Amino acid sequence: MTKVLSGMRPTGKLHIGHYFGALQNWVSLQDKYECFYFIADWHALTTGYETPPDFHTLRREMLLDWLTAGLDPKKSTLFIQSKNSAHAELYLLLNMITPIGWLERCPTYKEMKEELNDKDLSNIGFLSYPVLQTADIIIYDAKYVPVGKDQVPHLEISREIVRRFNYLYNADVFVEPEALLTKTPKLLGTDGRKMSKSYDNAILLSEDLKSVEKKIKQMKTDTNRKRKSDPGNPFICPVFGYHEVFSTKEEQEWVINGCKNAEIGCIDCKKVLIKHLFEFLEPLQEKRNKLDKEIDNIYEYLSESQEYAEKIASIKLEEAKKAMNL
Amino acid sequence: MTKVLSGMRPTGKLHIGHYFGALQNWVSLQDKYECFYFIADWHALTTGYETPPDFHTLRREMLLDWLTAGLDPKKSTLFIQSKNSAHAELYLLLNMITPIGWLERCPTYKEMKEELNDKDLSNIGFLSYPVLQTADIIIYDAKYVPVGKDQVPHLEISREIVRRFNYLYNADVFVEPEALLTKTPKLLGTDGRKMSKSYDNAILLSEDLKSVEKKIKQMKTDTNRKRKSDPGNPFICPVFGYHEVFSTKEEQEWVINGCKNAEIGCIDCKKVLIKHLFEFLEPLQEKRNKLDKEIDNIYEYLSESQEYAEKIASIKLEEAKKAMNL
Repeated sequence: MTKVLSGMRPTGKLHIGHYFGALQNWVSLQDKYECFYFIADWHALTTGYETPPDFHTLRREMLLDWLTAGLDPKKSTLFIQSKNSAHAELYLLLNMITPIGWLERCPTYKEMKEELNDKDLSNIGFLSYPVLQTADIIIYDAKYVPVGKDQVPHLEISREIVRRFNYLYNADVFVEPEALLTKTPKLLGTDGRKMSKSYDNAILLSEDLKSVEKKIKQMKTDTNRKRKSDPGNPFICPVFGYHEVFSTKEEQEWVINGCKNAEIGCIDCKKVLIKHLFEFLEPLQEKRNKLDKEIDNIYEYLSESQEYAEKIASIKLEEAKKAMNL
Repeated sequence: MTKVLSGMRPTGKLHIGHYFGALQNWVSLQDKYECFYFIADWHALTTGYETPPDFHTLRREMLLDWLTAGLDPKKSTLFIQSKNSAHAELYLLLNMITPIGWLERCPTYKEMKEELNDKDLSNIGFLSYPVLQTADIIIYDAKYVPVGKDQVPHLEISREIVRRFNYLYNADVFVEPEALLTKTPKLLGTDGRKMSKSYDNAILLSEDLKSVEKKIKQMKTDTNRKRKSDPGNPFICPVFGYHEVFSTKEEQEWVINGCKNAEIGCIDCKKVLIKHLFEFLEPLQEKRNKLDKEIDNIYEYLSESQEYAEKIASIKLEEAKKAMNL
């Protein structure tokens, strides 16, 4: 069965942007492919090494959100990266054959260094993180990797490393992975910027409903519409982006016309959205609370998945070592 | 008990330069310290990744020479680096905190790149090999590392990485290792260059005695001494370097006077040396042949040592992971 792999850094409780941008897609892939989804805690250290967060809590919170969204350890292999040392060993081996220049020229390398200029990212770990990512993917023969467009250059490095390995050792050990680009809606944060917990503009999947209501009510709209009598432009309003995800076609038409013609106010528009958000979040939160009570220890809960991941990875690692005469 | 660690790349059969330059010292350290000696096969890949040798054979040949020289798995922990994945995992973690600049500025980095200019050494594996070396050392709390002078800058990097780790994570996880510089004689190759199998100028510990005799007879001497009647200078003659290791003080005096005053010829001088080399090599080779017959599978033979190394390493690795909140 064709394999799919993806990972997420453990940032703790996830927001609705994660849900619609990635999780929903991951869940739907479970029935078509053999899926591996992992908690990328080592990757979190490439940028967060100076003040490592409490990974135990973050892993648990994220896993609960994964399960709430519908990821199912009976269908997919869910595991923790740092508990599978085969990834580290393959990373070491792949470093032997990966030119520094490939990594320095990776467009995201310089971009992230500039974007995160409050952090010292001049370390080998950050530079070589596409190599670790490559190890993560190819150790499972994953054919498809559901990623965002920004990750495509990394995947190109993975493909080059695979070609180089197979060529150098005249072996057919690794499969070239391909990006699985799926169009997903982008939900902006409540302040109109990219949704992120660090900007305090996110709506968490586990967010208290009263807080959701407050956040939506305070949410930024079309700034040109100062009074209810001014006509607005829903297509530049972050709230309308939410309607596109949560509301019916009819409701969306009602919003477009009402906003453009100044027939409805922002409060009317947001009320419909709040109702839908409640309908969406309430059952998820019930499910999450239940899971939270049921799952005592996530490591025990994942143990079967984790062991399976280790088994598959160790077989491929042995093949790689054999190809290198180790 | 204070710990000592050192490793050697598996180059197969060792020569007398290895014996007097390192092994003899390693053997003597066994009674004073808790020693860890490992076969550094991953390190061999940092420069030899393009055409990996048959590591199985090379590991066996080298181990037989180690045991012949007197290393004893009952006294020291002898193990194979690539069979201990904890080193790879710690290498990954240390990469997270190691600045690229520290490695680029390491004097041996540029030197080796120039020296081995027939090889493409522009890879991450080669650049970051002092980090792997650091992991090898500090995962055992090794206090002393018997190294040559050329390795001192690497050890300085190790010390800096330890300080950075302990500082960043406010923990006392790792010990700063120190170089154990021991004056050892340097035996030149039979052509007067550095002794190396790749120059075909080495005398192996397992070298057939007839071949030893032939090599010494053809060995380069003071090139200014063209005829037996010309006075020679023993202090620039590679043969005299051997006498300093193998011959008695009286014989050395006899060589110095005889050579300077043109009283003895090179053949006379070499005859004494050949006798001593036979006396040195014969019992070693008998021991080696016996070991070769006794030891069927080196992995089984080393299993107890290997397991002990893994146990010690995994305890330290867990401490490091805990310090990083993993």
